[in-house]
Amino acid sequence: MSLPRIAVDAMGGDVGVRVMVEGAALARRRHDRFKFLLVGDEEQIKAALENHPNLRAASEILHAPDTISGEDKPSQALRRAKSTSMGMAVNAVKAGHAGAAVSAGNTGALMAISKLALRTLPGIDRPALAALLPTLGENDLVMLDLGANTECDARNLVQFAIMGAAYSRIVTGLESPRVRLLNIGTEEIKGTDVLRVAANDLKHAADELAMSFEGFTEADKINRGNVDVVVTDGFSGNIALKAVEGTARFVADLLRRSFASSLRSKIGFLISRPATELLKHHLDPNNHNGAVFLGLNGVVVKSHGSANALGVANAVAVAARLLEDDLTTRIAADLARVGADSLRQTNRSARAKGEGAA
Amino acid sequence: MSLPRIAVDAMGGDVGVRVMVEGAALARRRHDRFKFLLVGDEEQIKAALENHPNLRAASEILHAPDTISGEDKPSQALRRAKSTSMGMAVNAVKAGHAGAAVSAGNTGALMAISKLALRTLPGIDRPALAALLPTLGENDLVMLDLGANTECDARNLVQFAIMGAAYSRIVTGLESPRVRLLNIGTEEIKGTDVLRVAANDLKHAADELAMSFEGFTEADKINRGNVDVVVTDGFSGNIALKAVEGTARFVADLLRRSFASSLRSKIGFLISRPATELLKHHLDPNNHNGAVFLGLNGVVVKSHGSANALGVANAVAVAARLLEDDLTTRIAADLARVGADSLRQTNRSARAKGEGAA
Repeated sequence: MSLPRIAVDAMGGDVGVRVMVEGAALARRRHDRFKFLLVGDEEQIKAALENHPNLRAASEILHAPDTISGEDKPSQALRRAKSTSMGMAVNAVKAGHAGAAVSAGNTGALMAISKLALRTLPGIDRPALAALLPTLGENDLVMLDLGANTECDARNLVQFAIMGAAYSRIVTGLESPRVRLLNIGTEEIKGTDVLRVAANDLKHAADELAMSFEGFTEADKINRGNVDVVVTDGFSGNIALKAVEGTARFVADLLRRSFASSLRSKIGFLISRPATELLKHHLDPNNHNGAVFLGLNGVVVKSHGSANALGVANAVAVAARLLEDDLTTRIAADLARVGADSLRQTNRSARAKGEGAA
Repeated sequence: MSLPRIAVDAMGGDVGVRVMVEGAALARRRHDRFKFLLVGDEEQIKAALENHPNLRAASEILHAPDTISGEDKPSQALRRAKSTSMGMAVNAVKAGHAGAAVSAGNTGALMAISKLALRTLPGIDRPALAALLPTLGENDLVMLDLGANTECDARNLVQFAIMGAAYSRIVTGLESPRVRLLNIGTEEIKGTDVLRVAANDLKHAADELAMSFEGFTEADKINRGNVDVVVTDGFSGNIALKAVEGTARFVADLLRRSFASSLRSKIGFLISRPATELLKHHLDPNNHNGAVFLGLNGVVVKSHGSANALGVANAVAVAARLLEDDLTTRIAADLARVGADSLRQTNRSARAKGEGAA
């Protein structure tokens, strides 16, 4: 089977072309059946490829004269899509020259460009950014939206739940993933009207939706291993994700300080190094890098702006896995199986009771 | 100087009267000038006091025939305020029989009861729940709102910033605390209209407000030690706080598993025990327990529903400290110094541009 290529926006992110190319080279070693389309400044990409002959042999370079910055608004990014590395990487997916695009650039810009170029799947109003997070259970957790949609109505949340469940089935093999809405309490009266309407709709449609909807979860319970999909608006999801990342780093810093606090602790640290290395591996966000925009006609993966080469490689590996598992077709099939009926019903109810969103 | 008494809702929370009374006894040892009003079932409180003769000597019991449960809606709690331990503890502050109330019960109920009984300070529409969180810097961070107000407009956020800065000045001694709004990015275009309006108002009023307003912060940057007050709506604040708590527990569990993974790690763990104990101390939420409702004519402290006796003692100690430092008078003075002018201006702008809130 000939697998489609992966387009890598070599210019996006805070890290520069060398890290993006090194990441692609690392990913290429793990997924050696894949070929790459490296999009960005041709001279810089060529220079970065000098150290990676294997990747060079598996890659084509697509020169892009312009880049999107972190400060560009989505509307500005859209206007310059045809000349920027991000826009050209996503357009390569649209044109069928690549099966997936990976970018470490501006999330809002990537969302706007991807939505315009690839369009959403039938039944989906907005794509959502989903990531896999580690848990104390056997399976990783799917969490969405992580920042693509600042404000959401109940209908958006129900659609996110459907897409998240489909992603969870692909990743975990579960027949009926356990889905919860993120809230500030588990009682039915807690939270906003939008959440209560979405919970009610999901409760009544969960059987058809091939998921086990289990109500609300609080943010301190998500990593216990007893929920497979956590659904939230992009504002709260981004806050939760970054709070988790920040705390993990905070703890790692405290641990370092604690171990350095006495000679005895230093000796203990050296002896127990395998344990702390294991912990470090678990906590390093680079090991969980690669969030995917669900709900598009195509695979677009967002790499963290400050990810290192290992992180970029993991984001590319997410794209590779989703191509191998044919994410887009499976989510589309899921939406078809769920049936337009339940979605339409949900939409009516959400419109009648939900709050408007920007 | 005769300090006012602290009223303790002995029945609230998941932990029961024994833990609440034991917590009060621990706090009494640290703050031995304080007297207590223990509110709840008289028989149960008397039984719990048998092990704590020092607390018994410093306490009066106020019998309450009823309690508020975690499932009670705020409206139900309000109707039963006169017969419940939570309601009677807060009403004791209103009547001047106590200077502060501490409860581990239902946050929404405590907010509703406190707001009705104690009223808000002039210039403040809604109280906000504020807590001190540990940072890698020298000072703890004040974060608010942590769950009292699910939806907020720009005017609420500006008022929270003023109250948070006043609290920070009391706790840290800083003249002009560094204040930021929690957002999903630091660029001015990021987030909701409400946040952009609040940021604009704070930017123009910060000098008069005796704070250094520094724009937005993301949730992963709050504990680095370079911000003193983080302002957010109650939904996002609760999500962020619980994500932090959940991650701290997650890491502690991982650490335990890592150290148990081999004999070598176990030995290393035993040797470096002082370091891991220090970490455990830092991460234990009981050591940071006690959130205060800012903006009321009186001190009301919320203890975590599942806090242990040490946690309850810390919540009581927060109340004691705020009484000693005369929080209410100082926040009222701050609001007066800030002047009705800047608040009024803020209100106009927030109304013109901000989004409505429930």
